[in-house]
Amino acid sequence: MNVSGTPYRTIWSEGSAVCIIDQRALPHRFVIEGLECWEDAARAIVDMHVRGAGLIGATAAWGMALAARMAEISADPSLVARAAAALKATRPTAVNLAWAVDRVLARIGPIPDRAAAAAAAAEEAAAITDEDAAMCEAIGTHGLPLIETIAAAHPDRPVEILTHCNAGWLAFVDFGSATAPIYAAHDRGIPLHVWVDETRPRNQGASLTAWELAEQGIPHTVIVDNAGRHLMQHGRVDLVITGADRVTRTGDAANKIGTYLKALAARDNGIPFYIALPSSTFDWSLTNGLAGIPIEERDPDEVRTISGWDGSEVRTVRLTPERSPAANFGFDVTPARLITGLITERGICPATEQGIRSLFPAPNPSPDTPA
Amino acid sequence: MNVSGTPYRTIWSEGSAVCIIDQRALPHRFVIEGLECWEDAARAIVDMHVRGAGLIGATAAWGMALAARMAEISADPSLVARAAAALKATRPTAVNLAWAVDRVLARIGPIPDRAAAAAAAAEEAAAITDEDAAMCEAIGTHGLPLIETIAAAHPDRPVEILTHCNAGWLAFVDFGSATAPIYAAHDRGIPLHVWVDETRPRNQGASLTAWELAEQGIPHTVIVDNAGRHLMQHGRVDLVITGADRVTRTGDAANKIGTYLKALAARDNGIPFYIALPSSTFDWSLTNGLAGIPIEERDPDEVRTISGWDGSEVRTVRLTPERSPAANFGFDVTPARLITGLITERGICPATEQGIRSLFPAPNPSPDTPA
Repeated sequence: MNVSGTPYRTIWSEGSAVCIIDQRALPHRFVIEGLECWEDAARAIVDMHVRGAGLIGATAAWGMALAARMAEISADPSLVARAAAALKATRPTAVNLAWAVDRVLARIGPIPDRAAAAAAAAEEAAAITDEDAAMCEAIGTHGLPLIETIAAAHPDRPVEILTHCNAGWLAFVDFGSATAPIYAAHDRGIPLHVWVDETRPRNQGASLTAWELAEQGIPHTVIVDNAGRHLMQHGRVDLVITGADRVTRTGDAANKIGTYLKALAARDNGIPFYIALPSSTFDWSLTNGLAGIPIEERDPDEVRTISGWDGSEVRTVRLTPERSPAANFGFDVTPARLITGLITERGICPATEQGIRSLFPAPNPSPDTPA
Repeated sequence: MNVSGTPYRTIWSEGSAVCIIDQRALPHRFVIEGLECWEDAARAIVDMHVRGAGLIGATAAWGMALAARMAEISADPSLVARAAAALKATRPTAVNLAWAVDRVLARIGPIPDRAAAAAAAAEEAAAITDEDAAMCEAIGTHGLPLIETIAAAHPDRPVEILTHCNAGWLAFVDFGSATAPIYAAHDRGIPLHVWVDETRPRNQGASLTAWELAEQGIPHTVIVDNAGRHLMQHGRVDLVITGADRVTRTGDAANKIGTYLKALAARDNGIPFYIALPSSTFDWSLTNGLAGIPIEERDPDEVRTISGWDGSEVRTVRLTPERSPAANFGFDVTPARLITGLITERGICPATEQGIRSLFPAPNPSPDTPA
């Protein structure tokens, strides 16, 4: 997507380095960072310079490519295996991470020549990166008709879409999941406006989604997480699209805390609520999201404090009384009954086991390439 | 209520001054401010040193008492009338404000002697202040059995209550509305724990409710507004109590933005949702909250920026991209169908016209004294 009019992906190779956008500085500064060794890649994941399932997977793959190149010039025979273990441990719950590392390992395993292995690792990382972008683009293609239909019904005004958190291109390599249909519609000249939930506590909506949309020139308005239902009640939302962190094979969706409240409000106001996801997000082992999906409890200081731009730098301030404890639940589970449909790289399906199986008949598919 | 173990109200007279707590400094600093003239009182309301319907009314009444005393020593015959007009204009939508000013005016109108009028004005302001405290105390008495019943059913653990925004003693003279049953239960030794919604954008929960509860030694945990439903889904909320800014005679309740989302989540999880209010909050002219209650749209910078403690002072930082617009809706309307009951100074009633009339049979009662 564009940054100041120039097309970017969230990760790319450039000379001997792998480049990423240090997302911690957004929306206040646009910082490109070069990763020179696999340790840089691991640190970028751990310290959340990059985040989002797709981008974490691609970063880990490029970390493996850097490890393979370091092994080419090093005498250390265990370097690649050590890098793989360390990269997998950076964010243990991100399913794409282990998958991407294993995929590069499988590719270079049979190649005894170190230089050839390094070249193959870079090829594989590039393939993983391209596939992530293609998968998100396909989600956009399949989601586009939802927006076109609303636009046709309301030719006098923009289509009003609400999203929560950041399931944008910054969470993937390009296009994003929830944002992909929005970018596709914008490309086709469909007038639209996006309500951006700020998404406390980490404010990924206010800081990342708003920035993405501003850079593409898409009209949008940041709102507090409390406001979405008021807008729905007053007929100012046509469609809700969010991403997901994990979806059971029966369609329950774990996503950023607060997603369920929006799904419930959408249902109460007769507004369609879609989840956009690459099929790698399905957890084929689970049938009950509420019982089966563990909800990460994160550092309470993410609630007690907040960071923002003070005019010259990013500064953290405390919001709560010094003695008041806080709790920080990362995700909630939206039951399938509240989800109008799932937008995947193979099309849209109902959030039911049968619906999902109609698009993904294999019992345990691995992360998918677009149909 | 207590501050560092010493009992306070939010407003009191002391010598020639009227004292308030400058709530803008909370929760980071406890600042007492003396109001020496009616202009000080007006400024305290306009600049939100004080807020909350009950406290605004009491502050305006004390502003009138200060005006009557200034008139005693001044040659200006129009001083009291000017003060009344200016005080009424400080927050035009706060119904208690005009009511309190008019009540002091009615009391001193028939008294020609300026010294006697000044004494009567102070008496009337004190009476308004005492009545507000008594009304909130009565709300606590009537709400207490709700908590006692839950405690009896779960003797092995604290009663878990969730609240939104600040309908605490800081919004009134003492006790608060939503917090009054909580304080009453705590006084009787019932173990309880309060989940405090931070309540973006102005964060009255994180800054005021958390501070109040901490000062009373009541166990509590601050959460983001997105988290409440996750807690409900996991059986960690027994009861939701909020305040209200305006309630129609049929029971629809306008309250801080986000209240509706919690009411909806409570309904979806079978959890009782109560609104606590003095009867002065009823708008007897309205039957349809959604159509009839105007929703204030406030300064978008309350969404784009936030203030907190940076270690030495309160500092404001920007959260959104510089170019991203924001929208700031002050309130939403919770439909009566989602409200389990209304806790008033006369008892608990269903959120229906018939239920409300069973407690308040007069067609247009003025703000009430406790039964």
